[in-house]
Amino acid sequence: MDMLWNGWGDPAEAAPLPDGVRDLLRDLLGVRPADTPPAALADLDVPAPRVGADVLAALARAAGGAASVLTGVPDRVRHTRGKSTPDLLRIRAGEVADAPDAVVLPGGHDEVLAVLRVCAERRVAVVPFGGGTSVTGGLAPDAQGGGFAGVVALDLRRLDRLTALDEVARTAVLDAGLRAPEAERLLGERGFTLGHFPQSFEWATVGGFAATRGSGQASAGYGRFDEMVVGLTVATPEGTLRLGRAPRSAAGPDLRQLVLGSEGAFGVITSVTVRVRPLPRVRAYEGWRFGSFDAGAAALRALAQDGPLPTVLRLSDETETMVGLARPEDIGAADGSADEAADEAAAGGADGSAAGARPGGCLVVTGYEGAAGEAADRRAAAHVVLRAAGGELLGAEPGEAWAQGRYRAPYLRDALLDAGAFAETLETAGFWPALPRLYEAVRGALQETLTAAGTPPLVMCHISHVYETGASLYFTVVGARGDDPLGAWERAKRAAGDAILERGGTISHHHGVGTDHRPWYAREIGPLGVAALRAVKSALDPAGVLNPGVLLPRADE
Amino acid sequence: MDMLWNGWGDPAEAAPLPDGVRDLLRDLLGVRPADTPPAALADLDVPAPRVGADVLAALARAAGGAASVLTGVPDRVRHTRGKSTPDLLRIRAGEVADAPDAVVLPGGHDEVLAVLRVCAERRVAVVPFGGGTSVTGGLAPDAQGGGFAGVVALDLRRLDRLTALDEVARTAVLDAGLRAPEAERLLGERGFTLGHFPQSFEWATVGGFAATRGSGQASAGYGRFDEMVVGLTVATPEGTLRLGRAPRSAAGPDLRQLVLGSEGAFGVITSVTVRVRPLPRVRAYEGWRFGSFDAGAAALRALAQDGPLPTVLRLSDETETMVGLARPEDIGAADGSADEAADEAAAGGADGSAAGARPGGCLVVTGYEGAAGEAADRRAAAHVVLRAAGGELLGAEPGEAWAQGRYRAPYLRDALLDAGAFAETLETAGFWPALPRLYEAVRGALQETLTAAGTPPLVMCHISHVYETGASLYFTVVGARGDDPLGAWERAKRAAGDAILERGGTISHHHGVGTDHRPWYAREIGPLGVAALRAVKSALDPAGVLNPGVLLPRADE
Repeated sequence: MDMLWNGWGDPAEAAPLPDGVRDLLRDLLGVRPADTPPAALADLDVPAPRVGADVLAALARAAGGAASVLTGVPDRVRHTRGKSTPDLLRIRAGEVADAPDAVVLPGGHDEVLAVLRVCAERRVAVVPFGGGTSVTGGLAPDAQGGGFAGVVALDLRRLDRLTALDEVARTAVLDAGLRAPEAERLLGERGFTLGHFPQSFEWATVGGFAATRGSGQASAGYGRFDEMVVGLTVATPEGTLRLGRAPRSAAGPDLRQLVLGSEGAFGVITSVTVRVRPLPRVRAYEGWRFGSFDAGAAALRALAQDGPLPTVLRLSDETETMVGLARPEDIGAADGSADEAADEAAAGGADGSAAGARPGGCLVVTGYEGAAGEAADRRAAAHVVLRAAGGELLGAEPGEAWAQGRYRAPYLRDALLDAGAFAETLETAGFWPALPRLYEAVRGALQETLTAAGTPPLVMCHISHVYETGASLYFTVVGARGDDPLGAWERAKRAAGDAILERGGTISHHHGVGTDHRPWYAREIGPLGVAALRAVKSALDPAGVLNPGVLLPRADE
Repeated sequence: MDMLWNGWGDPAEAAPLPDGVRDLLRDLLGVRPADTPPAALADLDVPAPRVGADVLAALARAAGGAASVLTGVPDRVRHTRGKSTPDLLRIRAGEVADAPDAVVLPGGHDEVLAVLRVCAERRVAVVPFGGGTSVTGGLAPDAQGGGFAGVVALDLRRLDRLTALDEVARTAVLDAGLRAPEAERLLGERGFTLGHFPQSFEWATVGGFAATRGSGQASAGYGRFDEMVVGLTVATPEGTLRLGRAPRSAAGPDLRQLVLGSEGAFGVITSVTVRVRPLPRVRAYEGWRFGSFDAGAAALRALAQDGPLPTVLRLSDETETMVGLARPEDIGAADGSADEAADEAAAGGADGSAAGARPGGCLVVTGYEGAAGEAADRRAAAHVVLRAAGGELLGAEPGEAWAQGRYRAPYLRDALLDAGAFAETLETAGFWPALPRLYEAVRGALQETLTAAGTPPLVMCHISHVYETGASLYFTVVGARGDDPLGAWERAKRAAGDAILERGGTISHHHGVGTDHRPWYAREIGPLGVAALRAVKSALDPAGVLNPGVLLPRADE
């Protein structure tokens, strides 16, 4: 099934906001119903393809036949940009001027190589396309200028096999276009799991996880995707890179780590060898209440530094805890609890009703997955640490509720957009001592810029990825959609990016760079870092056709 | 104190082989006493420096004064090549034609930058020099041709401070020239440890660990050095790279992983930010006996994949177990046990006397370090796994003996060389299923080539670094020093390298590439991988003065 072209996921899964929540959004945040309905697919003004019949024929030869080159409007629209809120607002407004000229569906590594050769020869820009879930402009290259003859989306959906599973090494070779649920299904039949469950799980692909360094909700237990990768096969216009002869090596720089996070700018990942784990026998989620975000963060730090680590570990700040009790689906529920929570949130204090029986505080969700005895032992030991850190056990309900709703947030965003609201997220990471000021600075930047734009927002935050030396911060912003939501968000995002860099954070913990984060990324790695990466790109993609302007400025800029 | 110029370590720590062992080496391996004594430092024919007074003056200005530029023969000799056995045989034979022209001792990052600018302008090759412990030619650049005006060793010994310790983040900023024991002392005063204890521990530096991706004997518990690094400061001829704003990031490729393992070819690491751990309250080592190398490897795999991991975990094959009961210092002991062991080893079977009370088998050494309760729990759980895998607990003695002798092997090698023997090591890593054939192939290659050279060797092996998906193999070779030991070893090493590549291993798990492993490294990463790294080098070191020929072929080759 294809993803909804102007929103998230499976249209059948969409759920409108209850009237009560609409009223609440209006009363608390000034959200007004959208005055124009979203554009219809049939009404979109998609430009005629720039590439000629000769290019299309060459692409068809490269990709195994004419059926592998799609030029219809729906296909081109479905490959236009990604799923950030600005992406959605623009496509809802009918903006598809940058639709790719064609969609190419190669059937294997060699066909990807052949497509890249055609594109390099003809100077056609190539956008590697997996699940299409980028929220940082990773599917929106700068290919309008720069002398490009056109743009094609290279959709990897036909590369969708589990090609090897080694039960001794516990490694699996997965085609890059394999979607995460299908990867889990194929591995699960053999008794294994990857353990990578990001919010985009239902749609994103294995290759996309590698290209963008995804991190899943169970990263405390299974690690980040880049930590799972032991091998990569990469097609470039100059040929093939095969990386990863051993789990670890001292043979030079780790080239896997140069491809991971390269977002299609250096090559197209066609297959990924990953470490897999036995399917967990038990899964148990539960909730804890902490008096404050700082107290909760200290508890997470204790677990990350001295163990034991739960498989899932996340902490919502006071606002996120109040709004929906950290249960996204409750925001859409009509039972009144969300109203109360949002009321408290709007009141702005940590003294309202919140997680569990007692008022105020912050919700921590923990999950334990694994063999029965091991998971139980780990849970018992974690309880000791969490109690010592001041936590109050709330039981299974908040944890199970989180697990039930874990992939619902993007659907909720569609409902919020439908209701006329604005909702978007951004994230960062830093070392533990930097987090409090990073949190305040980013939150402040978002509040200030959006309030100045006339749309004071609700800003929520959670920590969902922890390390010995630091953690991530994930912010969700909900507010009214003013007269110029794209402009307002651009200013807010710029202020947040500046705050992140000034307070010692990284511009992205797991969303990637794309085109949206490029200026901050350049500041983060400095001019020499940019020069080193540009040099790599020149070596692997001398024509500069791979995702131009993603990750790095175009060579002609 | 300076390291012995023609051997290892502190001369006061040297111990000659007992006569009984000499006799044994003669009888079993045909080792004859060396017919010529090693050259004396005073007799060495060190060429006159190639760099002129103007260059030396410019270097002195860059490095803080004339006292920072050393041109005396002893200083130049001490910076000639590294500590591989061929390095030692050549320096013992008086070969110092490639001594650096000068040794420069900058006092900080900015002085390193200034030295690099001088060298780039004057086209003087620069060899970054930490502890001088490379065993793969990492200190032996190809700088005799290529139009270089000379070669300087850039010794980082003055960069020797712990500049920051963050007890909340558990990170420390260490100058690159800090030697490991001093780093541990400075951290230990504050209650922390790095946990990195390679065999070169007593001499190697923090910067060297990073530049070569070192892995210590406690890697099961503390990780490899590259896994400890969260930040790097790097001086290049083009300026400074400062990397690592967060524990993990999705902001592009991980540039830290491009510098780690770059062996001075891209820049000079001047400071390293590492994750530190609390000093362990308890340290307990013990030994286990397994019936075979395969059975022991299966036990290690079980611990690596399903836990719990001891802090130290190593398995000796049958031969290594017999020779010295995996206790290096016993080989030098005169109590007869080594004689018996070597007798059995020479008999070639797994049926001789060996670890513990019963004959045959393979020794596993395990160590548990940490907080008292945690380490005890982990030990108890590991016992269950090791017993289930067929292990027989031998008690503390073999473990403690290993711990006592853990840094003695390089001294033993000097004694073996003094006694006329040849002794060298090499190592690799691969995924678990590849290990048995990798083991047989490398062992066979070493046996065959050295036997064909008239010096049938004793080849021992251990696994000392484990991962979920695979492990390292570390080989030790001891034999007679025939008429052409350098030629014979070159052939043996080449055959071993070919076997490693053919059997799916990496050319180095923790020794690095240097100049010795360069051809296999190029095969390992392929021409596109080499092209990508060459491009990085061109961007950071356009004059090509940094360790030319190390890691990558020189640009003019």
